[in-house]
Amino acid sequence: MAHCNESYLNLQGSYLFAAVREKADKYKQVHPQAQIISLGIGDVTQPLAQAVITAMHKAVDEMGNMDTFRGYGPEQGYLFLRQAIAEHDFQARGVQIDPSEIFVSDGAKCDVGNIQEIFSASDIVAVTDPVYPVYVDSNVMAGRSGRFVHDSYEGIEYLPCYEECGFKAGLPSHDPQLIYLCSPNNPTGAALSKSDLTMWVRYAKQTGSVILFDAAYEAYITEDDVPHSIYEIDGAKEVAIEFRSYSKTAGFTGVRCGFCVVPHALMLETKKSGKVEANQLWDRRQCTKFNGVSYIVQRGAEAVYSEEGQGQIQDILSIYKKNARIILEGVEEAGLHASGGINSPYIWVTVPKGMTSWDFFDFLLHEAEIICTPGSGFGPCGEGYVRLTSFNTPELTEKAVDRMQKALARRREMKA
Amino acid sequence: MAHCNESYLNLQGSYLFAAVREKADKYKQVHPQAQIISLGIGDVTQPLAQAVITAMHKAVDEMGNMDTFRGYGPEQGYLFLRQAIAEHDFQARGVQIDPSEIFVSDGAKCDVGNIQEIFSASDIVAVTDPVYPVYVDSNVMAGRSGRFVHDSYEGIEYLPCYEECGFKAGLPSHDPQLIYLCSPNNPTGAALSKSDLTMWVRYAKQTGSVILFDAAYEAYITEDDVPHSIYEIDGAKEVAIEFRSYSKTAGFTGVRCGFCVVPHALMLETKKSGKVEANQLWDRRQCTKFNGVSYIVQRGAEAVYSEEGQGQIQDILSIYKKNARIILEGVEEAGLHASGGINSPYIWVTVPKGMTSWDFFDFLLHEAEIICTPGSGFGPCGEGYVRLTSFNTPELTEKAVDRMQKALARRREMKA
Repeated sequence: MAHCNESYLNLQGSYLFAAVREKADKYKQVHPQAQIISLGIGDVTQPLAQAVITAMHKAVDEMGNMDTFRGYGPEQGYLFLRQAIAEHDFQARGVQIDPSEIFVSDGAKCDVGNIQEIFSASDIVAVTDPVYPVYVDSNVMAGRSGRFVHDSYEGIEYLPCYEECGFKAGLPSHDPQLIYLCSPNNPTGAALSKSDLTMWVRYAKQTGSVILFDAAYEAYITEDDVPHSIYEIDGAKEVAIEFRSYSKTAGFTGVRCGFCVVPHALMLETKKSGKVEANQLWDRRQCTKFNGVSYIVQRGAEAVYSEEGQGQIQDILSIYKKNARIILEGVEEAGLHASGGINSPYIWVTVPKGMTSWDFFDFLLHEAEIICTPGSGFGPCGEGYVRLTSFNTPELTEKAVDRMQKALARRREMKA
Repeated sequence: MAHCNESYLNLQGSYLFAAVREKADKYKQVHPQAQIISLGIGDVTQPLAQAVITAMHKAVDEMGNMDTFRGYGPEQGYLFLRQAIAEHDFQARGVQIDPSEIFVSDGAKCDVGNIQEIFSASDIVAVTDPVYPVYVDSNVMAGRSGRFVHDSYEGIEYLPCYEECGFKAGLPSHDPQLIYLCSPNNPTGAALSKSDLTMWVRYAKQTGSVILFDAAYEAYITEDDVPHSIYEIDGAKEVAIEFRSYSKTAGFTGVRCGFCVVPHALMLETKKSGKVEANQLWDRRQCTKFNGVSYIVQRGAEAVYSEEGQGQIQDILSIYKKNARIILEGVEEAGLHASGGINSPYIWVTVPKGMTSWDFFDFLLHEAEIICTPGSGFGPCGEGYVRLTSFNTPELTEKAVDRMQKALARRREMKA
């Protein structure tokens, strides 16, 4: 009889967002008039930029015409898009990336989940804690973990990110071969500085480990000292794979496009002590198990880099960035500690003393009719925090902050 | 140091289409005036149906408007598309498939490549020979094979498909747990009848194996006795996963959309002799490593099922079907044996006695300026055959057949 992949049985249910939804639904049943505002949502709300819309209409028309119809495209993505990426995302920052090092995909989540396939199943994985669950779950599925014990998987190295260290992980004590870093971070909003990243690249070079660098939120960086790409660090091409996404940059969550960079300089070891290019393995993976991104979508992504597109996209980003500032300042005014929000759409709030993440979730839902995401859902070190996002509309974001402040003020009065 | 997935090193280079291109390029260099016609191409040439174009324009507009913008969609696909699939592809043929058993994807190649992830790495795989390479390569990557010896991988069971048996495989001698079947077949064009498929379902039920049924070419079926879905066979829901694609049905090769059906009745064994739904595992796989298909593309796929869309798509399909008949009859008139082409866009031609697949490829290129695909590239049993496709335009298809007939006539005269 056919057997299941036994590693799947180690996976924990993805209870976090289901539990959030259940609690919100229950509240709505009891309070049918409630105008709940979600700051828990990780999805954008602003429509696509006009330049993207125009480009996609044009591409749709091309597909309806015999002379301009396009069938199968290159699995790696069309050269027009890969060249635009190389020029605007890298050359413009002084980084030379060849189009052959760029692989266009239907989103960073897919790349981040699939990339582990090119590595040995016995390589050890390190993740920061709290963490975006896909890094962990995709490795559990591939058999790189043991059972789930004490809120974490045996065999995976969790690097704690404490408030005292600005929510930045220290170097691993062991020598993991695969290290997932996300900067600006989901969920904490912490961004690694040039010197932070230099430390990681140095460590990876010394130990021969590979950094899987998730830069999905780079468009939210506002500080000069925070690199947008890990390749801004000397030598990073020998040790790092980078993941990018148009989801949060250009509102592509429902359009589906991203890319990853696998430099030719990054070599993996073979059992016979030979070496093989990671780029070559990923290319083979993509050519076998993937068939390229929709032509229409790739033309939309290309338009993101046009002068018109850039202007429109910065306008949209500035809405979310302003929301982030309003939430961050509002939360701090209300007497809570918060971080993130400066280089990130996420604000990471320390819950009031004596409360758990879920306690504060309940408080915000019942006292301010606001939905947040409990930090404990992102890993053991997320306990005591909640994540707020800046993706709602400016009006509802301001309203939410106001409600939150009033609820916290009432709580102080009651305690006094 | 990070290690590569050692199984990738077992993979053979995908030389087939590269070699075809190289030979064609060389010929063009020597004969710059040559008007080469490709019947090797596996890609469609007709533009998208107008109903699809209209639906995608509408969806693009929705994405540009605050009130109708859509962010992340369900990983499994929008219900509007899954319901349309359940109704038109299955209910209409008397098959009850619940939308929760349907998973929309960015193409059948991805699904066919990824599905093996939910099975144990020690399950044994059977494929027909000749075979679509993705079935084999994705399993080699996952470690289900040994080395490549004598034109095939150790550890994978190849089921020979001989001309004497209508290019249909017999039942495996061993008990593989995973059996890939493609009907109508790529590359041979052979289609499994109702009784053929009943035999396979019966075998799978008895042995507990799972049939991975690739129905990407079902739209080309013209004979009543050939099921469009394996679920037309009683009991198939307990043993089969089915793959479908809009690529060859509706010209979506560059748009990217397909789906697979994982019935709730299909159970896999766990080590502790428990059972788990394959549907549940695949759902978890997709939710972790995939993020759904572009909303615009899903609206395009939905339009395929509209009355207008169906009419337009049948018109396009009839062009390719007519091409197939012209090629099949033309090749037979020229004195060669050929099969396929009746329920399939592929015609499988027996090469003249004394020639190999590559010999005949060279003959067609040099004597008729036609490109075909050598059968030996699809597996050892493909030696002695070439694949011709019906996806070129009617004009060029007729021209190609004429040239082929004249070249073969000249050859006969020279031999006489």
